[in-house]
Amino acid sequence: MLNIKKPALLLNSDICTRNIRAMAAKANEQKVIFRPHFKTHQSAAIGDWFREAGATAITVSSVSMAQYFANNGWTDITIAFPANHLEIDEINQLASKIKLNLLIESEETATFFKEMLNEECGFFIKIDTGYHRTGIAASNVSLINKVLQASKTSKLRFNGFLNHSGNTYHAKDRQEIISIQQHTSENLLRLKKNFQPQYPDIILSVGDTPTCSQLPIAPGINEIRPGNFVFFDVMQFALGSCRLEDIAVALVCPVVAIHHDRQEAIIYGGAVHLSKEHTSLPPDPKPIYGLAVSWDGKSWDTANLLGKVSSLSQEHGILSLTQQGCNLKPGGLVAVLPVHSCLTGNLMRKYLTLDEDIIETMNS
Amino acid sequence: MLNIKKPALLLNSDICTRNIRAMAAKANEQKVIFRPHFKTHQSAAIGDWFREAGATAITVSSVSMAQYFANNGWTDITIAFPANHLEIDEINQLASKIKLNLLIESEETATFFKEMLNEECGFFIKIDTGYHRTGIAASNVSLINKVLQASKTSKLRFNGFLNHSGNTYHAKDRQEIISIQQHTSENLLRLKKNFQPQYPDIILSVGDTPTCSQLPIAPGINEIRPGNFVFFDVMQFALGSCRLEDIAVALVCPVVAIHHDRQEAIIYGGAVHLSKEHTSLPPDPKPIYGLAVSWDGKSWDTANLLGKVSSLSQEHGILSLTQQGCNLKPGGLVAVLPVHSCLTGNLMRKYLTLDEDIIETMNS
Repeated sequence: MLNIKKPALLLNSDICTRNIRAMAAKANEQKVIFRPHFKTHQSAAIGDWFREAGATAITVSSVSMAQYFANNGWTDITIAFPANHLEIDEINQLASKIKLNLLIESEETATFFKEMLNEECGFFIKIDTGYHRTGIAASNVSLINKVLQASKTSKLRFNGFLNHSGNTYHAKDRQEIISIQQHTSENLLRLKKNFQPQYPDIILSVGDTPTCSQLPIAPGINEIRPGNFVFFDVMQFALGSCRLEDIAVALVCPVVAIHHDRQEAIIYGGAVHLSKEHTSLPPDPKPIYGLAVSWDGKSWDTANLLGKVSSLSQEHGILSLTQQGCNLKPGGLVAVLPVHSCLTGNLMRKYLTLDEDIIETMNS
Repeated sequence: MLNIKKPALLLNSDICTRNIRAMAAKANEQKVIFRPHFKTHQSAAIGDWFREAGATAITVSSVSMAQYFANNGWTDITIAFPANHLEIDEINQLASKIKLNLLIESEETATFFKEMLNEECGFFIKIDTGYHRTGIAASNVSLINKVLQASKTSKLRFNGFLNHSGNTYHAKDRQEIISIQQHTSENLLRLKKNFQPQYPDIILSVGDTPTCSQLPIAPGINEIRPGNFVFFDVMQFALGSCRLEDIAVALVCPVVAIHHDRQEAIIYGGAVHLSKEHTSLPPDPKPIYGLAVSWDGKSWDTANLLGKVSSLSQEHGILSLTQQGCNLKPGGLVAVLPVHSCLTGNLMRKYLTLDEDIIETMNS
């Protein structure tokens, strides 16, 4: 029986390792490199569960995160974020110790790292196939050529093309995810064909959780980098990437007030615990910030929905209660499945397993 | 010249102390108790600036925060959050050391604390005058009577009525804020009149930053508890509570990519730094997550707007650039005025002053 008095991020390690093994097996069966993104959990201990599932290469989203995991024995790391000129010293230091890959998407950045790198360092060119966050448009072969030109005769070693189809997070259905995947892989394969004469070992790397969890890996892709699947969350559930039973984390929160007249409960659990990320569960268009299910002191039960988190302020959450939820009382506890587990994990900074082990992260 | 390589939360202590002194002076002139909310900064050092401005009583939003500030010499603390039954041990411990006030809004909670408190403890009844987050409806005198009845002959000492008009955050203009203030104070004054025969020393406590910063304190109010004004932010600017020059914090972020074709820059600064809180600046209805202004290595310049943060993912921010912003280059830095400084401060966990002092918080 766990003694919880204030918001705590619980981790079901059985679900988590099942999620890890399933994705590792998929990569293995389809013979692609499995380079999971560690920004979701940010934890050396959870990293070890990936190692046990066969992972030897990882993805991170910052130089700081690369330092943390390098210090925890990972020797092959891609920083999937446009290379930050200002961290050149830290990048040189990392590149002297491990196999490091950067992301480059401009001639200026290629030139900067060509001049400033003291150590061998791999790089991917980030390709935009429709998400329009970062990257060079797949059609802009001339800019890709300039980047490759600018990187020549330096410590930079071209690895291939990397894409993140974050637009799958806005897909209205599975069909749209299929279309995005198809469009992405067509574009990447065309680029590979184009540049293969000069660079025979080009790697095509993709990696959003909706595509990686819902669909077979597209033919010709060499590497996958999903991250969120390690925990999943309500957003992935809404997208069809997982069942509620596949969500590995829940924020256990005290109930502090009930307003029967409007069928609401107030929980101690707010934006500083869950983050303000929201989603919706069609056909209801209203934003939700989490789903509250029952907690019996040992585990949560996704079959017993108590309410939707309809609003969040700094420390308060408002639950819009279901019929079962109306039995809640101040002094009780609920388990909230988060909308975006990456942001909730980052805020909570450690996990408490159902076996009462504390799992630290780089932010603990 | 500050050497910033990754997102850092800069604090202009001159602006911050000016904001503190202005609110303290307002409370002083209007002869009300100044009980600032410390959830915005969560820092003992910034708490000391309030002490220098004359504050002796404070508000916090959690038992943990009360413990932190009690350990830093504050002896009169209201936890402005529905009292959490599960933290009864911590509450008893705090109440043995300092003058502690709880918030109660149900008979059950009054009964629980009547039975469980070992130490004298003040309480306010939380009154809802239209925000509909927590509290007893001002018209529900019968429930207020029940709470008062349940608390009698115990360690609980009734202080008065407390309200948070968070609905001012959704006000469309100043006139609406005036209406909310008027409605709130009418309701609170009626309750005071009603209960004064039995409780002659009733305190009426209010405290949202939009009302407290924009309007004179309503006659008859005894205490104000604003918090956000210590830093202000873009949301308060949008509400008319401050000028951009009154915002005391900015997240300095590296520029990592420019997309001239769509007039966008990518900064290293995302949801894990700024939070996903957004607002809008009419007449443009589009959500913004921050305003980027120039940073010269020593201070930021609100007169030089470089872009709006139009989207955030975990570590990336997208800036929709102004004409001036189009001169940005990878390797540069911008200062982002946050939409909600409470959440940004909570995420960043420490402040760096323009004089290069690090200011720790309870989360450092």
